[in-house]
Amino acid sequence: MLGTRALLSKQTLAVFFRQPACFVHQGDYGNWGNTNVAVVFSGCGWWDGTDVHEGVYTMYHLSRNGARFQIFAPNQQQMNVMDHMKKQPASGENRNMMIESARFSHGQGKMQMQDLSSLDASSFDAVIFPGGYGITKNLSSFMKDGKDFKLHNDVERVLKDFHRSRKPIGLASMASVLACRALPSIEVTMGYERDENTRWGNWPNTNMVQTVKAMGARHNVREPYEAYVDEKNKVVSTPSFMWETDYHYHYIFDGIGNMVKHVMRLSTK
Amino acid sequence: MLGTRALLSKQTLAVFFRQPACFVHQGDYGNWGNTNVAVVFSGCGWWDGTDVHEGVYTMYHLSRNGARFQIFAPNQQQMNVMDHMKKQPASGENRNMMIESARFSHGQGKMQMQDLSSLDASSFDAVIFPGGYGITKNLSSFMKDGKDFKLHNDVERVLKDFHRSRKPIGLASMASVLACRALPSIEVTMGYERDENTRWGNWPNTNMVQTVKAMGARHNVREPYEAYVDEKNKVVSTPSFMWETDYHYHYIFDGIGNMVKHVMRLSTK
Repeated sequence: MLGTRALLSKQTLAVFFRQPACFVHQGDYGNWGNTNVAVVFSGCGWWDGTDVHEGVYTMYHLSRNGARFQIFAPNQQQMNVMDHMKKQPASGENRNMMIESARFSHGQGKMQMQDLSSLDASSFDAVIFPGGYGITKNLSSFMKDGKDFKLHNDVERVLKDFHRSRKPIGLASMASVLACRALPSIEVTMGYERDENTRWGNWPNTNMVQTVKAMGARHNVREPYEAYVDEKNKVVSTPSFMWETDYHYHYIFDGIGNMVKHVMRLSTK
Repeated sequence: MLGTRALLSKQTLAVFFRQPACFVHQGDYGNWGNTNVAVVFSGCGWWDGTDVHEGVYTMYHLSRNGARFQIFAPNQQQMNVMDHMKKQPASGENRNMMIESARFSHGQGKMQMQDLSSLDASSFDAVIFPGGYGITKNLSSFMKDGKDFKLHNDVERVLKDFHRSRKPIGLASMASVLACRALPSIEVTMGYERDENTRWGNWPNTNMVQTVKAMGARHNVREPYEAYVDEKNKVVSTPSFMWETDYHYHYIFDGIGNMVKHVMRLSTK
């Protein structure tokens, strides 16, 4: 009977803590509610800026887990503007990263966009970089220099400052490439290491794994719905849209959810 | 002991059906897996197109619930381009709704953007219009004509065709205003009916409720995390960003989740 009693007791606890999803907001009930997270964007669209889904999923999971957050982007022009239908540059157009990133923000009150040059690690508990192919274009010289690329000055400064301060860094998809340039001894995941087609999606860009390995990082194979935690360096990464899928967006949503939760857990240590 | 046995039996069942979230995909396990949903966009950004969060949340919930979906937008210029930081039109710029909407799509395979003029109700089980202030600019003459506005021809055709075919229509925030012009006898929610500040957000645009009432629709008060179901007309609406919030994006996520689930339920009736 002791086993049964223990079981009932756990059930009672479970009922006690269960509330409608809409009322569960750890910001109001304790836990991570005071965590203040900086999120770095570089436009609005995966081919020329920050991936729309990765950006929105990051903001959603921070909201659900009760964090406060502030979004930042460089107050500079994007490398180019891509026609996302034709997958080629749109001629004669240019866009500012900070103005385009403001499309993610409803802009009132505390959610005004901030210039990345003003991001000070001492004011935040953690930093997250959502990914997208465009972030390598805008936040590094990768398109010009390949594996010998240099980082955007502010991105390098921010990554090194958070790391030095023992504050967690969250990375989605291509953001791992940027982080490994500033912090070559970290461990990350960008998903699979060989191009493969799986039941619900494909891994067409695994050559990027070679790039992070060449910089000195250790790579760990993970599924799209997982995150890899480098506890020592407090770096949490998830493959995200390194995996291409038609309809299984929720796998990527889960991966970013895991990344955000580990970033918040590590921010309290 | 019978009570305890019944309890254990329920527990066993619960364990049997419990799988990691990443494996739960109703498309692969039955239920709504064959539901094919058309989603209508009109750009990428809440001030001059479709709200980024409402669009991404809609695609996520369709993915999580196992639907197939296809995104559509008019192959036409937006009404204007807004600087989302200054909240004023960017001079000398224009953008195409279909090209900008492609920022939501990763574009490969089945997820290529389609022209709204080609959307045929007979090929889909349901249609969803995510909202944003920009959809009234692009899909109607509301900015010029106020309450006497006319709808974009294809939007009017699509709404009437799905309604006539007894196929469900999902609406988020400002999309309810458009639907009430084509289908004046429906019931919708746009949230609260009077401007109010609540603990976690505000209702600053409740004058839009008067607009839908003036068109003949019946309005129902709902919270941001709820949806209202007009079972008779198979119209499901959610307030979404009629509610302004700093950090409580997950309430809007839940509202769109409820809307999508009811749309999928009604599509099987």
